[in-house]
Amino acid sequence: MSEGKKVVLAYSGGLDTSTILVWLIEQGYQVIAYLANIGQEEDFDAVRTKALKFGALKMVILDLRKEFVEEFIWPAVQANATYEDRYLLGTSLARPLIARAMVKVAVDEGAHYVAHGATGKGNDQIRFELGAYALHPTIEVISPWRLPEFYQRFKGRTDLFKYAEEHGIPLPVTLSSPWSMDANLMHISYESGVLEDPNHQAPAGLFQMTADPEKAPDNSDVIEIEFKKGVPIKVTNQEQGVELTEALDIFVYLNKVGGKHGIGRVDLVENRFIGMKSRGIYETPGGTILLTAHTDIEVFTMDRELRKIKRTLDIQFGDQVYKGFWFSPECEFTRFCIAKSQENVEGVVTLKLFKGGVYILGRKSPLSLYNKELVSMNVQGDYEPVDAGGFIKINALRLREYARLRKKIEK
Amino acid sequence: MSEGKKVVLAYSGGLDTSTILVWLIEQGYQVIAYLANIGQEEDFDAVRTKALKFGALKMVILDLRKEFVEEFIWPAVQANATYEDRYLLGTSLARPLIARAMVKVAVDEGAHYVAHGATGKGNDQIRFELGAYALHPTIEVISPWRLPEFYQRFKGRTDLFKYAEEHGIPLPVTLSSPWSMDANLMHISYESGVLEDPNHQAPAGLFQMTADPEKAPDNSDVIEIEFKKGVPIKVTNQEQGVELTEALDIFVYLNKVGGKHGIGRVDLVENRFIGMKSRGIYETPGGTILLTAHTDIEVFTMDRELRKIKRTLDIQFGDQVYKGFWFSPECEFTRFCIAKSQENVEGVVTLKLFKGGVYILGRKSPLSLYNKELVSMNVQGDYEPVDAGGFIKINALRLREYARLRKKIEK
Amino acid sequence: MSEGKKVVLAYSGGLDTSTILVWLIEQGYQVIAYLANIGQEEDFDAVRTKALKFGALKMVILDLRKEFVEEFIWPAVQANATYEDRYLLGTSLARPLIARAMVKVAVDEGAHYVAHGATGKGNDQIRFELGAYALHPTIEVISPWRLPEFYQRFKGRTDLFKYAEEHGIPLPVTLSSPWSMDANLMHISYESGVLEDPNHQAPAGLFQMTADPEKAPDNSDVIEIEFKKGVPIKVTNQEQGVELTEALDIFVYLNKVGGKHGIGRVDLVENRFIGMKSRGIYETPGGTILLTAHTDIEVFTMDRELRKIKRTLDIQFGDQVYKGFWFSPECEFTRFCIAKSQENVEGVVTLKLFKGGVYILGRKSPLSLYNKELVSMNVQGDYEPVDAGGFIKINALRLREYARLRKKIEK
Amino acid sequence: MSEGKKVVLAYSGGLDTSTILVWLIEQGYQVIAYLANIGQEEDFDAVRTKALKFGALKMVILDLRKEFVEEFIWPAVQANATYEDRYLLGTSLARPLIARAMVKVAVDEGAHYVAHGATGKGNDQIRFELGAYALHPTIEVISPWRLPEFYQRFKGRTDLFKYAEEHGIPLPVTLSSPWSMDANLMHISYESGVLEDPNHQAPAGLFQMTADPEKAPDNSDVIEIEFKKGVPIKVTNQEQGVELTEALDIFVYLNKVGGKHGIGRVDLVENRFIGMKSRGIYETPGGTILLTAHTDIEVFTMDRELRKIKRTLDIQFGDQVYKGFWFSPECEFTRFCIAKSQENVEGVVTLKLFKGGVYILGRKSPLSLYNKELVSMNVQGDYEPVDAGGFIKINALRLREYARLRKKIEK
Repeated sequence: MSEGKKVVLAYSGGLDTSTILVWLIEQGYQVIAYLANIGQEEDFDAVRTKALKFGALKMVILDLRKEFVEEFIWPAVQANATYEDRYLLGTSLARPLIARAMVKVAVDEGAHYVAHGATGKGNDQIRFELGAYALHPTIEVISPWRLPEFYQRFKGRTDLFKYAEEHGIPLPVTLSSPWSMDANLMHISYESGVLEDPNHQAPAGLFQMTADPEKAPDNSDVIEIEFKKGVPIKVTNQEQGVELTEALDIFVYLNKVGGKHGIGRVDLVENRFIGMKSRGIYETPGGTILLTAHTDIEVFTMDRELRKIKRTLDIQFGDQVYKGFWFSPECEFTRFCIAKSQENVEGVVTLKLFKGGVYILGRKSPLSLYNKELVSMNVQGDYEPVDAGGFIKINALRLREYARLRKKIEK
Repeated sequence: MSEGKKVVLAYSGGLDTSTILVWLIEQGYQVIAYLANIGQEEDFDAVRTKALKFGALKMVILDLRKEFVEEFIWPAVQANATYEDRYLLGTSLARPLIARAMVKVAVDEGAHYVAHGATGKGNDQIRFELGAYALHPTIEVISPWRLPEFYQRFKGRTDLFKYAEEHGIPLPVTLSSPWSMDANLMHISYESGVLEDPNHQAPAGLFQMTADPEKAPDNSDVIEIEFKKGVPIKVTNQEQGVELTEALDIFVYLNKVGGKHGIGRVDLVENRFIGMKSRGIYETPGGTILLTAHTDIEVFTMDRELRKIKRTLDIQFGDQVYKGFWFSPECEFTRFCIAKSQENVEGVVTLKLFKGGVYILGRKSPLSLYNKELVSMNVQGDYEPVDAGGFIKINALRLREYARLRKKIEK
Repeated sequence: MSEGKKVVLAYSGGLDTSTILVWLIEQGYQVIAYLANIGQEEDFDAVRTKALKFGALKMVILDLRKEFVEEFIWPAVQANATYEDRYLLGTSLARPLIARAMVKVAVDEGAHYVAHGATGKGNDQIRFELGAYALHPTIEVISPWRLPEFYQRFKGRTDLFKYAEEHGIPLPVTLSSPWSMDANLMHISYESGVLEDPNHQAPAGLFQMTADPEKAPDNSDVIEIEFKKGVPIKVTNQEQGVELTEALDIFVYLNKVGGKHGIGRVDLVENRFIGMKSRGIYETPGGTILLTAHTDIEVFTMDRELRKIKRTLDIQFGDQVYKGFWFSPECEFTRFCIAKSQENVEGVVTLKLFKGGVYILGRKSPLSLYNKELVSMNVQGDYEPVDAGGFIKINALRLREYARLRKKIEK
Repeated sequence: MSEGKKVVLAYSGGLDTSTILVWLIEQGYQVIAYLANIGQEEDFDAVRTKALKFGALKMVILDLRKEFVEEFIWPAVQANATYEDRYLLGTSLARPLIARAMVKVAVDEGAHYVAHGATGKGNDQIRFELGAYALHPTIEVISPWRLPEFYQRFKGRTDLFKYAEEHGIPLPVTLSSPWSMDANLMHISYESGVLEDPNHQAPAGLFQMTADPEKAPDNSDVIEIEFKKGVPIKVTNQEQGVELTEALDIFVYLNKVGGKHGIGRVDLVENRFIGMKSRGIYETPGGTILLTAHTDIEVFTMDRELRKIKRTLDIQFGDQVYKGFWFSPECEFTRFCIAKSQENVEGVVTLKLFKGGVYILGRKSPLSLYNKELVSMNVQGDYEPVDAGGFIKINALRLREYARLRKKIEK
């Protein structure tokens, strides 16, 4: 039926997507394999070779790292973005970018289908597909792990291995991995396997992006991050002679120096969009440093009441991104408003990095609303203490009325 | 005029409140000195002796530590309470307690006035006075640092020293302290003086409650905190043979072990209620550990959507407390609702403490909504992957409509 | 396959559910027909006769009107509940009640299935099923209008008519109704058919619960509604000699008098949970009067800041109810908190009803926070005007700082 | 002392501000009287004559009506702005405009002071002064009704009358007005006097802008309002041959036709910024029509989730405006974001006006997200009913988990 139909498959070169590639061809599709370079460690040439060997019409590999930082991570920095207070959204931010490029490949190649290997219980299927539908409302998505004809055929890893052997797909070195991971420029996440027991401590050997804080260097690094319009425009490590101004360079460096000091590890349980609780372990070194630094410069330069409104938007942004609604009217609006709020978020934050910790040492800004004279305990500044008395009295007015009512009720 | 009028003065024994004590007597007041023990380091007997020596009618010293933990800190733990994302409210939480006891002393002693030594630029004047007015709407507050006749007489420290010498009030050992501090069971805060320059790094010798992370022990401690209804009911350090179940004991221990590992230091700029930005440095060891642990057990046991609503209340609670509205209709309501949300927040969190860091190792609960089988990558559980397809399609519906409209507009 | 399996069918006696009844029996189910009396106009005996005639094992008819008012409408009154600012949730509030009773019937009858005739594009399918799953997580739901084997068999009304004729199901008098309607004690809603054109004016003959305001009486009615804990406990129409104190009586009377005066008609477009926009016309006479009156007494008696928090909860409640989450952790919590907020919402509101309008004439309360002397322009009361100066100056502080920054930037 | 100092006085020509004018001159000020024409009924020449007669250096009268509509009322329309759900902010919106022009006069005239006659218990003092400080941080404000030397001299109306007689200030015709009123293009508000009793019905003769609904015409008017970017750009009354496209014309017409039909009366209790509850009666004919129409076209054209975020901003905007923070970082931001949300809010709403009621008859838009085919009960459109099943199942997932936990707890 689908003879000759073209599908763009998000292809990683691993067992699952290789199986899907072969299976799709079996179903009569012409497969264009597609892989986004978003900073993960990968032998891209090997992936290309594999894809073509398994019958892909073509292998498209795109370097999206710069876009990832500038168009996805930077807005998240402006938003102090987290999901449920703790997860820095490393995977969530990458998915819409991957989907956008995947849709573009589909349009360029005249494919009416896109396919991916995300599981049927996770968030990523949603993020890929909402992104695809939002950008290309008539695209059709093939998600094999949700198709009964696929998932009932490959019920366990054994079925997969058998099929792989029959089709010359190489098996992973260790047949049953103790957990799964997802890596990109922003973070590595670990979940499932032994980690499914939320009380099972993450094994020491799990982490790949950060040093164990207990084994991190005994000497700290002090860095300066300069922000303009809420995004970093320069990172300096004077002692090490580092000064970087390109977005990608800045982020890569923060990952490196943060990773060296064991920064950004978190073990948490989160609520997936589909409603189940899931345990994940994340390491986000550069993102953690930037969250700390940006929060600081933002409070320093932004009006209190404006920031209160903006923080509500931040939380909504985190939710939207986590749930896969990057390309949506509400997320576009939220990003637009947050970006507006960042106009004066400018200045330099000095931080010390040491054994898992990010410590702020100071901050300065040409645009701060901080007024040293006004706040001084020793100088009066343009301030009349007596005004505070009136301020308090007026604020107390409704409390006193309430107290009177309460006394009346108690009687 | 105020001959014979009684005033309860919040008295610390320091230069400022001693001066105020003497000055109030000069103005014709009968002064009842009052000091709350909320866990600060203090020679209470020496304060009593001073007060009486300077002419106080009476010195009332109250041990409020247990109330502080159980009635003020625990609700803050339930609320994951912060102000502006970072300040754990150590001072803010103590103020309403001090005000409540101060009002009680005033009622018991038949005093119509209360007085305090808080400055006219800070938050504490507001917290004391709103608390006092809310609990006793007809009380009158004397705030000398807002009275022109007082603050114009004592314009600088020199005036204060001169008056002190004349009245036998002992001067502090170092005449000009490089910063001011406020200490209680929950935290120590440092501000003003050299810290008024927000880019001036906090001096190494400043901290008194926590070790410098760089000098903290090379060996971590692993502790378990058990929660019930969102508050800690047991802390265990198996290796050290520690097991505590009393609220005050738990909190004191967490301070001690947290302080030993250099946990809970933060350098920040915050927005005071009166509208100015102010730089503060805080150390909150026990509070920081509890914030981390409680957040974890809460997400583990609480429904996602309930928690979203609850987090909005949390933020409002933090704001209310910071601004001095503990005793207000809205804060009572907020606490009531938050407490309700905690009914199932129960279980044990295991944490590692190491050189400034609090690391979660795992968590377990008899009441968790976490369902290991449901979330498993290897077991299907009570879950049909195909349902997720419908879920995504329906969620995409409005995005696709929006895309169609956008295309129409673009034409 | 489902031979002998019992299903409880929400049965209205109409063409659709009669067809479903017969079809379910065809599929081998034993059908227990179930109909909730929630105040709709209905010949219940005729429905019973039909159900049994078409082969139902049993017909269960339950009078839920009192529960509807006391357990569902009253909480909505406390919440000033609307969806998207305008829809008073008449259908949404009834659905969880119907679902609860349906589940109870299933449990009592030992049925593992429930079935309903709601369409696959609407909200009601969601409300029924979320209610059912929440109360009985292992129940199975049969929704024929979502089953391809059903909806592909009955593609148009013609198929349905043919099947009906073959099975002795009486056809409606007018074969193609120009719109569909849903009626209960709280409201009647009209949608689809000619109303699907959002610019097509609602036909004059459509409304059944309210008079046309243009034809309503030329004489107004003045009524008094007394509230306690945020719910009406007495309605009085002195001129007409009416005084009612039972919940159901109060609501029925408000519908009657409101309907007489043409109150509560609204024509709107709303966003369904599944994401499409839909046009609906509603008449909610009693609900509209209560929304107006309750809002008034609430502002009169509730603290400003408490009400701000409560209003956020109200909006969330409206959303939860609309989307079918009445039985959910978040909606239980929201109702609990809102109920708490109503403790002092007590007093009497006097209203005039006239040709579509509800006009408040006055209100009084033993628990109001309104203080006539305090607010008086002619009496000073316990208020010092000079305090307002300090209040303003302090509120202006951050605005002046901002102005200074702006001037600096402009330079 | 203030010899030769220039002050700009907001001067209405009434008893209070005439007294203030004379008193300011007595205190040695040079007074520039200033009056904004914001649509109130006024004999502006007579006011000018008075001001100069009483000694004003100059009388500046500015016609701000167009600015009022375009820069203040239109943003409020975009925001569906209300305060506490009911007050349409007619006075609140005018105040920042008056303050802005007043500051401009002060700058132009080289005056360092501005003065106004607002009372010390109201909101207007705050709105004027926050506006003035925000736009001109070093301006000084003279608010006689907050100055003890003024308000203790003029304790009652008698003192004022005596002073007026001595200085040739004409007394009002009726010595004691039964209430006070404030009128502008947007509304008239009535408060104080007999209205201070919240249960005292508003006298029939009070209203000046709207007909009594009971005496309004028996024939309705049907009008069409066309919106673009969320603001009205055309009003049509086909039957009456009316078609208007200028902002000021549109608003004046809506007031006229709304007033004729008795639209926009409301009697409410509100919470003033200073914390007291106050009773006000408002008539806002044009504003009420626009709120109804704009809400309708907004829901019709705006994405559901975007609107949810926008509605939170709306509520914040209403609060900011009520409290006098129009010129503030947060209100500028809020207006900016709301304006952004209005890009596609375009189309025509048809409304019937009749005896106090505004009834929507229909709406159409070139940019609507409404999809008639998608929502149709008779056409399947681009929609698979089966998807809704998956949607519901996934939404039920966490409810079922919760039910299981609950059962576990109950055991």
